[in-house]
Amino acid sequence: MASKSFYAIVSGVGSGTGRAAAVRFSKAYSVVLLARKPESYNEIVKEIKQAGGHAIGITADATDEAAVNAAFETIKKELPGSKLAAAVYNVNGGFARKPFLELKREELDASLDAAPKGFFTFAQKTLPLLLDSVSDSPHPPSLLITGATASIKGSALFGSFAAGKFALRALGQSLAREFGPKGVHVAHAIIDGGIDTPWGKNFVANGGVEDGKISPDAVDADGTIKIAETYWHLHTQHRSAFTQEVDIRPYVEKF
Amino acid sequence: MASKSFYAIVSGVGSGTGRAAAVRFSKAYSVVLLARKPESYNEIVKEIKQAGGHAIGITADATDEAAVNAAFETIKKELPGSKLAAAVYNVNGGFARKPFLELKREELDASLDAAPKGFFTFAQKTLPLLLDSVSDSPHPPSLLITGATASIKGSALFGSFAAGKFALRALGQSLAREFGPKGVHVAHAIIDGGIDTPWGKNFVANGGVEDGKISPDAVDADGTIKIAETYWHLHTQHRSAFTQEVDIRPYVEKF
Amino acid sequence: MASKSFYAIVSGVGSGTGRAAAVRFSKAYSVVLLARKPESYNEIVKEIKQAGGHAIGITADATDEAAVNAAFETIKKELPGSKLAAAVYNVNGGFARKPFLELKREELDASLDAAPKGFFTFAQKTLPLLLDSVSDSPHPPSLLITGATASIKGSALFGSFAAGKFALRALGQSLAREFGPKGVHVAHAIIDGGIDTPWGKNFVANGGVEDGKISPDAVDADGTIKIAETYWHLHTQHRSAFTQEVDIRPYVEKF
Amino acid sequence: MASKSFYAIVSGVGSGTGRAAAVRFSKAYSVVLLARKPESYNEIVKEIKQAGGHAIGITADATDEAAVNAAFETIKKELPGSKLAAAVYNVNGGFARKPFLELKREELDASLDAAPKGFFTFAQKTLPLLLDSVSDSPHPPSLLITGATASIKGSALFGSFAAGKFALRALGQSLAREFGPKGVHVAHAIIDGGIDTPWGKNFVANGGVEDGKISPDAVDADGTIKIAETYWHLHTQHRSAFTQEVDIRPYVEKF
Repeated sequence: MASKSFYAIVSGVGSGTGRAAAVRFSKAYSVVLLARKPESYNEIVKEIKQAGGHAIGITADATDEAAVNAAFETIKKELPGSKLAAAVYNVNGGFARKPFLELKREELDASLDAAPKGFFTFAQKTLPLLLDSVSDSPHPPSLLITGATASIKGSALFGSFAAGKFALRALGQSLAREFGPKGVHVAHAIIDGGIDTPWGKNFVANGGVEDGKISPDAVDADGTIKIAETYWHLHTQHRSAFTQEVDIRPYVEKF
Repeated sequence: MASKSFYAIVSGVGSGTGRAAAVRFSKAYSVVLLARKPESYNEIVKEIKQAGGHAIGITADATDEAAVNAAFETIKKELPGSKLAAAVYNVNGGFARKPFLELKREELDASLDAAPKGFFTFAQKTLPLLLDSVSDSPHPPSLLITGATASIKGSALFGSFAAGKFALRALGQSLAREFGPKGVHVAHAIIDGGIDTPWGKNFVANGGVEDGKISPDAVDADGTIKIAETYWHLHTQHRSAFTQEVDIRPYVEKF
Repeated sequence: MASKSFYAIVSGVGSGTGRAAAVRFSKAYSVVLLARKPESYNEIVKEIKQAGGHAIGITADATDEAAVNAAFETIKKELPGSKLAAAVYNVNGGFARKPFLELKREELDASLDAAPKGFFTFAQKTLPLLLDSVSDSPHPPSLLITGATASIKGSALFGSFAAGKFALRALGQSLAREFGPKGVHVAHAIIDGGIDTPWGKNFVANGGVEDGKISPDAVDADGTIKIAETYWHLHTQHRSAFTQEVDIRPYVEKF
Repeated sequence: MASKSFYAIVSGVGSGTGRAAAVRFSKAYSVVLLARKPESYNEIVKEIKQAGGHAIGITADATDEAAVNAAFETIKKELPGSKLAAAVYNVNGGFARKPFLELKREELDASLDAAPKGFFTFAQKTLPLLLDSVSDSPHPPSLLITGATASIKGSALFGSFAAGKFALRALGQSLAREFGPKGVHVAHAIIDGGIDTPWGKNFVANGGVEDGKISPDAVDADGTIKIAETYWHLHTQHRSAFTQEVDIRPYVEKF
């Protein structure tokens, strides 16, 4: 069912949102999964193939420019003639919850590497490809970005992480304003709730109530993974009605 | 196809977004259209019926508490046993673009009547019905609100209109936080672009470029009206991943 | 020391911020105090006079247009030839903390009356007077507005109060954009903390720690009331460096 | 008049705001000026000394951790026994206005170096010193940060600059929340207008109208530099009424 002539790429598939997006987009496109370690994508590639989709995993550190360049060379060979319809930047990193005076500069660097820097490289590689798909992509070519509560609030003890996420949001806004009029849809999702962040896994969110976490495993009767539906919806919006920013949180989340 | 046992209600169907939402929701539910004048809903009711849906129009001024109460009495009779799945508040009014010192207090009143006051009445009528549908509604019962650029920015000469829209957004946020944990999804859409506001009709938005306005008439191959897809998506979000606020604008809109 | 040829007016002096502002501005100007009941201003008038200042109190409900008009007639007689240098809108009202379905429409009305409606009347009376002072006022003529946390966040159970405060902020933004270029400084202060709201008096804020509330009684060695210093600073800003919005909270306040 | 036992430090004095802040704070404290080149501070040091103040300039690149460390060693020797009362981070850098696909990664790096990274180092050096002054500083020890329009809006073509400024604001918010309760006042000023940014000098802002730019040279009758008054006001706020964020713009600026 999936069109082999277009593909989606998801950078950062280790966490829940990345996997969910990959599986959702695989119903329409070939999917390329980028992660630092094969362990992060192997199972997802298998899952997509078993469902009749087409997926390839590529090992690349999103913060390593050369590795990302190499990944796109690999894509050219593996998916000859296929064009990019959607790119999802879902990399998390640099999370540190600690008193500011105990933070190391390396911890700030890790956050900036994972967020604005890694995204910068990803966007510079994918935007020319997305622009090239404007005329014939089934939906407006999309660059989708995963943000967090820390994208809009610098909470105590979360300074370095918030610095990266704020900066990522700034880039997303700027690109939306520059590339929207050219037909590429750039959108930013603020994930506000337990999940898809490595540190969230151990939290008993919202008293452990049912659906109190954003669940990347929850599926509808038709197998649709729920968290990814909003990403898919953003991708399929008509160009006369683009969304730039959306928040997503469990119904019981305090905000 | 549409379930007769659930219905959606749209208050304010004269403008583009209201009609689009009514048509979209009529694919799944019976639809009740509220407007001040039959001329505002007659054609839409006809359109929905011709497409095989079920719709009724009721004349009621959203700012008139008694009229709104009477409308809900009518619904009970017209749709016996049917439960409320979604309520859309799309009333516009009180728009005035003029120097502050030329504004009449009645113009501020009109904006407050159409926005926070009318919505207050609508929400007090619909929330008990939505709560009652939590256990068996096909999707989380939803209260959806149409905002505008003036919901988040008080521009020069737009003070009275912005006052109403800001207040409406405040109520929406408060209700989202109170009723979300009870299973009712309250969401606010910021429509940022030419359309669905009575004064926008005459504007040549964005240089007249194709799709430069949010188009309530644009349809996909399957007849889906595009602007309303985001409203429908909000309604169908799983409770583990609710959106509270979303912006919608044409790809060429400056923001 | 205070110039008798200019005056400041403070609407809403019952609560802490209003009194503090009145006392602070009385060091430079005659001060007019508006309140619904003489009990609210009698002591403050006395306090200012004892300190060598000039003050008059006028009984007027800020939400009653005729009463406000009458107040300005009184001012003309009481302060002949004096020009308006600063107007402070500090009216609170319509506070109700309760489940939405228990709210009465009158409670929403009370909030809208005290915030956007009362301010609308106040602004329409004072802006022409402030414009008239642009050329010779010691500082840019100022219209200062007291907001609250509820001006920017619609919390659960605070919907009606937030509706009013959001709307008030919208008007303030719009007026700042319209009248700033004409030389009148319109600014909005978000008071985020226990105080100056009637219901805040009984709260033991921030564990009862010293200075854990915004204290309208705290004075510096020279008798300056601290909370009012930011209002005075806003008034004295040069027109090349106007502030539109400022937040104020105790150092221990969570935000 | 200035207390020799306390000092203020201003990092980034080449541009208008930095100089203005240094001169303003020199009326109360010894002042240390940090800049990359002696040319940036030599004249200001002279100006302060001529006015009877005490100032020293130190050459240090704010983005060079070792250089900043060395600067603080120098301060210890030059101002023995003096304690830090206020620290102003006013470094600008990494400005680039260009299409995203023409941006070099080095340009993003320059913005991140000047904003979150340079500030991180500055804050880690100054916060322990500010904490140490809480008990005896004349005013709450303050860490003041210069932001820009790009701190809250990622405009088209300004992505890399906005990334740095957003990240800087995130850190400021986080530190305000962590160190406010400890008595250190962390505040962020959004400078929205022509000036104090290297690229602003050539703009004819707001049609060249008088006071259409934020003027670091404008002085009151008493020699007070106007732009810096808001920084000084932030520093002198009582801990019961701290401001976290303030915007500053010329009266004619569109926003």
